[in-house]
Amino acid sequence: MVNSINIIKKFDLSGYGHDFLRTWDKSVDHLNATLATAQTLRDWHAKGISPNVFASGLAVSIFRDKSTRTKYSYSAATNLLGLEIEDLDEKKSQIAHGETVMETVNMLSFLTRVIGIRDDIFLGVGHKYMKDVAHAAEWGFKNGVLDQRPSVINLQCDEDHPTQSLSDLLHLANYFGGLDKLRGKNLTMSWAYSPSYGKPLSVPQGIIALLPRFGVNVTLAYPKGYSLIPEIESYAKRETKKANASFRIMDNMQEAFVGADIVYPKSWASYAVMEQRTKLLKDNDEKGLAALEKTALVQNAKHKNWTCSEKIMKQTKSGKALYMHCLPADISGVSCKEGEVEESVFEAYKKQTYTQAGYKPYIIAAMILLTQFGEQTPKILRSINQRKKSILDF
Amino acid sequence: MVNSINIIKKFDLSGYGHDFLRTWDKSVDHLNATLATAQTLRDWHAKGISPNVFASGLAVSIFRDKSTRTKYSYSAATNLLGLEIEDLDEKKSQIAHGETVMETVNMLSFLTRVIGIRDDIFLGVGHKYMKDVAHAAEWGFKNGVLDQRPSVINLQCDEDHPTQSLSDLLHLANYFGGLDKLRGKNLTMSWAYSPSYGKPLSVPQGIIALLPRFGVNVTLAYPKGYSLIPEIESYAKRETKKANASFRIMDNMQEAFVGADIVYPKSWASYAVMEQRTKLLKDNDEKGLAALEKTALVQNAKHKNWTCSEKIMKQTKSGKALYMHCLPADISGVSCKEGEVEESVFEAYKKQTYTQAGYKPYIIAAMILLTQFGEQTPKILRSINQRKKSILDF
Amino acid sequence: MVNSINIIKKFDLSGYGHDFLRTWDKSVDHLNATLATAQTLRDWHAKGISPNVFASGLAVSIFRDKSTRTKYSYSAATNLLGLEIEDLDEKKSQIAHGETVMETVNMLSFLTRVIGIRDDIFLGVGHKYMKDVAHAAEWGFKNGVLDQRPSVINLQCDEDHPTQSLSDLLHLANYFGGLDKLRGKNLTMSWAYSPSYGKPLSVPQGIIALLPRFGVNVTLAYPKGYSLIPEIESYAKRETKKANASFRIMDNMQEAFVGADIVYPKSWASYAVMEQRTKLLKDNDEKGLAALEKTALVQNAKHKNWTCSEKIMKQTKSGKALYMHCLPADISGVSCKEGEVEESVFEAYKKQTYTQAGYKPYIIAAMILLTQFGEQTPKILRSINQRKKSILDF
Repeated sequence: MVNSINIIKKFDLSGYGHDFLRTWDKSVDHLNATLATAQTLRDWHAKGISPNVFASGLAVSIFRDKSTRTKYSYSAATNLLGLEIEDLDEKKSQIAHGETVMETVNMLSFLTRVIGIRDDIFLGVGHKYMKDVAHAAEWGFKNGVLDQRPSVINLQCDEDHPTQSLSDLLHLANYFGGLDKLRGKNLTMSWAYSPSYGKPLSVPQGIIALLPRFGVNVTLAYPKGYSLIPEIESYAKRETKKANASFRIMDNMQEAFVGADIVYPKSWASYAVMEQRTKLLKDNDEKGLAALEKTALVQNAKHKNWTCSEKIMKQTKSGKALYMHCLPADISGVSCKEGEVEESVFEAYKKQTYTQAGYKPYIIAAMILLTQFGEQTPKILRSINQRKKSILDF
Repeated sequence: MVNSINIIKKFDLSGYGHDFLRTWDKSVDHLNATLATAQTLRDWHAKGISPNVFASGLAVSIFRDKSTRTKYSYSAATNLLGLEIEDLDEKKSQIAHGETVMETVNMLSFLTRVIGIRDDIFLGVGHKYMKDVAHAAEWGFKNGVLDQRPSVINLQCDEDHPTQSLSDLLHLANYFGGLDKLRGKNLTMSWAYSPSYGKPLSVPQGIIALLPRFGVNVTLAYPKGYSLIPEIESYAKRETKKANASFRIMDNMQEAFVGADIVYPKSWASYAVMEQRTKLLKDNDEKGLAALEKTALVQNAKHKNWTCSEKIMKQTKSGKALYMHCLPADISGVSCKEGEVEESVFEAYKKQTYTQAGYKPYIIAAMILLTQFGEQTPKILRSINQRKKSILDF
Repeated sequence: MVNSINIIKKFDLSGYGHDFLRTWDKSVDHLNATLATAQTLRDWHAKGISPNVFASGLAVSIFRDKSTRTKYSYSAATNLLGLEIEDLDEKKSQIAHGETVMETVNMLSFLTRVIGIRDDIFLGVGHKYMKDVAHAAEWGFKNGVLDQRPSVINLQCDEDHPTQSLSDLLHLANYFGGLDKLRGKNLTMSWAYSPSYGKPLSVPQGIIALLPRFGVNVTLAYPKGYSLIPEIESYAKRETKKANASFRIMDNMQEAFVGADIVYPKSWASYAVMEQRTKLLKDNDEKGLAALEKTALVQNAKHKNWTCSEKIMKQTKSGKALYMHCLPADISGVSCKEGEVEESVFEAYKKQTYTQAGYKPYIIAAMILLTQFGEQTPKILRSINQRKKSILDF
């Protein structure tokens, strides 16, 4: 298992850094340590051991897109460690046109340990914004404006969704009995039909960029025109080679499911649509956006057969591949007329997808500990384990 | 008095359950234990003893209607016990049409101890929704998705408002010198005129369903056409008989006040209006709603003489009945031209109505402890009392 | 330095009171104690010592105007001491027309330690409202409705902005090497051009009312027509005399900068415009407001030369005056075309203005401690220092 504190000690934590923006900024050792720390926190919670290490401190949240699961997970993670959420509502604040990121970040960081950000609507914006926030936090700390360097955590950007992909990976490790058991497994990340458009690319990008590094063979499937950011597809291919795994792109969902150990059918907008949408959103072009939505939905509707049915599930390895989803899924006959997955398939794996989602608070908490304490983290975990502070105090 | 830990031990806590939805789902012992626990917490607060038992954990709040008092009370109660509020803003979240309650509840419960819900706008909806939430929480816990079973607490539904009615009851117990002193007292729950319509039925329903079980004689008074949910009126009558108390319905406020020890004059919509309103709200029929409001207000205005005046207060027992209100009251000449109560009456009892409201945080905290710890609660209270942790720590 | 606990003991804390509404309600000893307590908390934070003294309790926030910095500072301060924010959203609550301040305040105070309020839009309203809130809290405490008296803290009203002016003063004390070093220093509080109107008067008013009491010579500069509330200008003059300092009003920014040790160039609306605006806002006169904005902006634009340029900075003492701003500043070429300050000046002092802002959480925390514990505060600080509870707990 991945959850022993002694295991965490083995990983090289140098260079972990003060932020967690993308999995591909981290070494495999960094990722292993993140998973092991998350699993430790998960096990402790089940046992009632509290990892509360901050006597006070704020966790700033900046959500530029709607969120239920990740927002909850961020609240749960920060609360677990002793921090309190301070939400930046950009509409209610004085953040006028032109106030610099440098200033906002410093103003919100005097007693702050972590800044969690979701910014996934505009291509080319989210990751850049997070880098700017991290730079501002670094400047404030180096110049003595801030007593401590708040960590910047990516809660989904245009490029990656690391709290999702690492939760997914930890779920797989637990499901198959260990991270090492994933080597050689076949995962199919497939586009699926949804009667909505404009869904971020970061979930599939996060999966194809992360899983090959742990030896998983990845099949990426999408209809012609639904490609991801080209640089990330290329990165995934390169990492696959390094790890002696395989990577392929297919344009047929049914074929892509054949022999899969794991399937991850999920809708996303095409890179081209996202590029147009970004431009239209920046221009506040409502007519253009409406027209684009219409075209994109018509385009999507050509691929209604890209749905995770009982029938194609039978083509997977022994007909028993693990079905994954980041939730909420568009379930045919439940949340929409026709969608990403048939109700019977979703119901059969409901316990699994819910469990998959449940790792996210611990992944976020692990990122906070490692970005705040770096190489000291194993020592701190040991000390938490020894004090055995209970989640219930009576 | 009701506040001794030794007294709590005497009550049969088996079957208390993991949720608190309606007082009539609980035995008299359950209710007695809730009151005694609340009073204990109230006394401890005055003495500066902290009952903080959760080192961390979230308290999810779902408010589908406006709230100041109950929202504050829920925040205060959860904070007192060591939990942090996580508000589900259904507008800001991804909760699309069709996302199941099962999924939302599990996603919001990984590190959650309690889910507080206000859902009182639609007849036939609120209580049902809370049952669905409780069912989903139970499913998640039994299937290993959740480490703990979060309690579901009703912060006002279409049927009952138990945190209100139990606060009211505890206030009466303290005012008259003990729960046993309430046996044989006469309480008049009366409709009163207000220049607004569509007020929930749950406060009067909660009062008439709860108080007879403690031996209070209840007079329910309303103008023709303002009846409550028939099943709840019937339940109140049955419970009255069991408790050897009396229950009557009158259509004259002045007569209903004669000889009362306690009066609770408060406006509500008629059951018939609420049924129509529920239908129109579901249909999003704005014109229909405007028309209904107009008719209902004209109807209300026929009963402007249903107001709690100094004059009719003189007809109560020795002219000194205790005036109660869940607040905010529509005070003639203060918050409206003509309303539920004359300013002089309200002012004379201001200290009492404010005190009445002050029990709510402790009632909610008691419900959380009892739903989380069940038969262990007396032991835990004893242990809190022994550790004598101070609310101030220096 | 101002930060020794032994120093705090020397100040006469009698009469500090349960609220902090305006600096001119406090004695110089009260202010000195506030500064010394804030500096102590600031130093402790840098060292990792936690002043968490409340095991639980709420900090109600009422923001009637937008806020980022002060809202964050209030959250950070209350979290540092162990309290949790409960935000009163007057739109989401049931606070109908006519609900009394008396009632709302009592309903929100049962387990509350502090009520922080920003109410700076209407002249003649904000301070009055805060006094009403304090009166209601006092009534509730004296009548046994509340177990403790919550402190009311002014987070900016129409008259004063004490958390700002005291942060500014503490910044100056640290910058110049001690409060005593400020005696005889020349500070120029100057109006500056901004392409917006309706900015509150409370920052300049707070500065001119506070700084003379510490021996600072104040020059207040504004174009004809931009005077502050007359009573506050008069107060400042009187206090200056008592402190053997000088006070003057000028209508030329350049001349006002000559020889200054400290400059504070900042835009504000004129008293006359604010009076008209208050009337129009109360009448909901949108047309009138639009017309007033137009006139006021034209009026402002006549004074575009009132900007803090590199050139006029050269006229200050040795060309090296400290530039101050409460932030956000309107920076020419950054946040607007032409504004209060040139980019090069702002950038040169960025570290200083950010540091200036960083005192606010500690000033607020000091106000909470002193209003809650009064003359006991030095003893409590000593006890915190002795227990040496760490901000990190492992």
